[in-house]
Amino acid sequence: MDKPTKKSALHEQPDRIKPSGRTIFFVSDGTGITAETLGKGLLSQFEGINFRQMRFPFVDSPEKAVDCLSRMREVRERDGIRPLVIMTMMNTQISAMLRQGDALFLDLFEVFIAPLEKELGVRSAHTVGRSHGQAGREYTNRIAAMSFAIAHDDGVSDADLKNADVILVGVSRCGKTPTSMYLAMQFGLRAANYPLIPEDFERDRLPDTLLPFRDKLFGLTIAPEKLHLIRQERRPSSNYAAIDTCRREVSAAEGMMRREGIKWFDVTSRSIEEIAVQIIQAINNKA
Amino acid sequence: MDKPTKKSALHEQPDRIKPSGRTIFFVSDGTGITAETLGKGLLSQFEGINFRQMRFPFVDSPEKAVDCLSRMREVRERDGIRPLVIMTMMNTQISAMLRQGDALFLDLFEVFIAPLEKELGVRSAHTVGRSHGQAGREYTNRIAAMSFAIAHDDGVSDADLKNADVILVGVSRCGKTPTSMYLAMQFGLRAANYPLIPEDFERDRLPDTLLPFRDKLFGLTIAPEKLHLIRQERRPSSNYAAIDTCRREVSAAEGMMRREGIKWFDVTSRSIEEIAVQIIQAINNKA
Repeated sequence: MDKPTKKSALHEQPDRIKPSGRTIFFVSDGTGITAETLGKGLLSQFEGINFRQMRFPFVDSPEKAVDCLSRMREVRERDGIRPLVIMTMMNTQISAMLRQGDALFLDLFEVFIAPLEKELGVRSAHTVGRSHGQAGREYTNRIAAMSFAIAHDDGVSDADLKNADVILVGVSRCGKTPTSMYLAMQFGLRAANYPLIPEDFERDRLPDTLLPFRDKLFGLTIAPEKLHLIRQERRPSSNYAAIDTCRREVSAAEGMMRREGIKWFDVTSRSIEEIAVQIIQAINNKA
Repeated sequence: MDKPTKKSALHEQPDRIKPSGRTIFFVSDGTGITAETLGKGLLSQFEGINFRQMRFPFVDSPEKAVDCLSRMREVRERDGIRPLVIMTMMNTQISAMLRQGDALFLDLFEVFIAPLEKELGVRSAHTVGRSHGQAGREYTNRIAAMSFAIAHDDGVSDADLKNADVILVGVSRCGKTPTSMYLAMQFGLRAANYPLIPEDFERDRLPDTLLPFRDKLFGLTIAPEKLHLIRQERRPSSNYAAIDTCRREVSAAEGMMRREGIKWFDVTSRSIEEIAVQIIQAINNKA
């Protein structure tokens, strides 16, 4: 049985490996990212089961299908129960080969393409790799947005802030950076982020750089106890991480945002994805 | 009819608006990211149809369902044809309310939860927001990996390279940065990236900093013509962007990677997602 070492974690993700677990294959003739994203959402609904995950991207030839089938047999043998296969297969021939295996097959495309063809009155292209093609404005936009987000991370650059779609503000380590990156990558939004630091609280006003862009600002705030834990990891036993410092900064930042009329979100029990989608909604409501 | 201005693009994405288009709702009582990801993959299979996309995340109350229903009616009226609704709804009551609307409903969870319950022999939790919860090692890992990727973007820092899972090398603007960020965000991989610059080609050897980490290096390369176009956007008519410069650098970089035994990928016609998944596979094969 594999130990959950760093390297093997890339291959299988044995979060909660027990011999009694079930193995999930994410199989695709594309990247498999869609299968994995939906699959993880589905599996999260089943508590108390030890899922072991394996990725099989780019299964686009009979040879690769045969290889995948033999892995299914191995897993069937090892687990003593058939694996689950969550897949997005465009190539119907390869798909048919895979289905000879002993597994529960959930094919996202198969289930939805047929009703869509009926509704739209046209046949689907059944072509791999369209969803993430390099062509198209949306893709170029995402790449440009990521460059922008990196160039404007943590107040590094003031230049070009006028081209930001959104500028996140908040105390150090409250989640501004990953939220900016996610907004750029997933939604193509040019997201800058700018820290509120002790000097700003002493002056008790927003950094001058931000004043012209007040309508693009969104604040993130966080429970001081959580912030303390996060900062402790970075700089243990520092004044920066002390619970009193965290309390003071969070309180000062919230006071400032309230006074300046900046909309803000508490990120304490929210994921990056949830915060990002909430920011998108807030921007839409402003528009 | 909306014009595709920057702001409205956030709300509806009227990539190819025509009055004859179909409108797609992505509806969820969570973030809706899963519905949108799969939905876009499905829609990409239908060419020649003008899809207009609208997001309805966090539809978790009867009030929000009523609002969503009234938007369906508006769209039905405007388009002259019912909208498509791609959804992930955990709350079955809200889901039932939505289904009173006139639309084609494709509910990802509904279709897959039942067969999974049967196969696993347990009832699902039917709880919103589990898939992206903040708890868990995987989530913490992704956040840490993103900080790492930003700190080690474009050779900014040599410190801590020993903790990298992978170090991407290649000429300037070949796609190292977005690939690193994607590897971190999607897979929790600590990805650094390091540019190969004219000085390296003059010395005709890898930067000294990278020598101890040869086994973590992956190269990206790109067709000189494509590189030329990308660099032109950044610095038009510069020597940096000249096609001759691009040809020389790409050729030198490929020669160096070949000689040093660094595995590399041509990214010219590949998306970030495809490159990232290929790197993951290469790492697994090494392990």
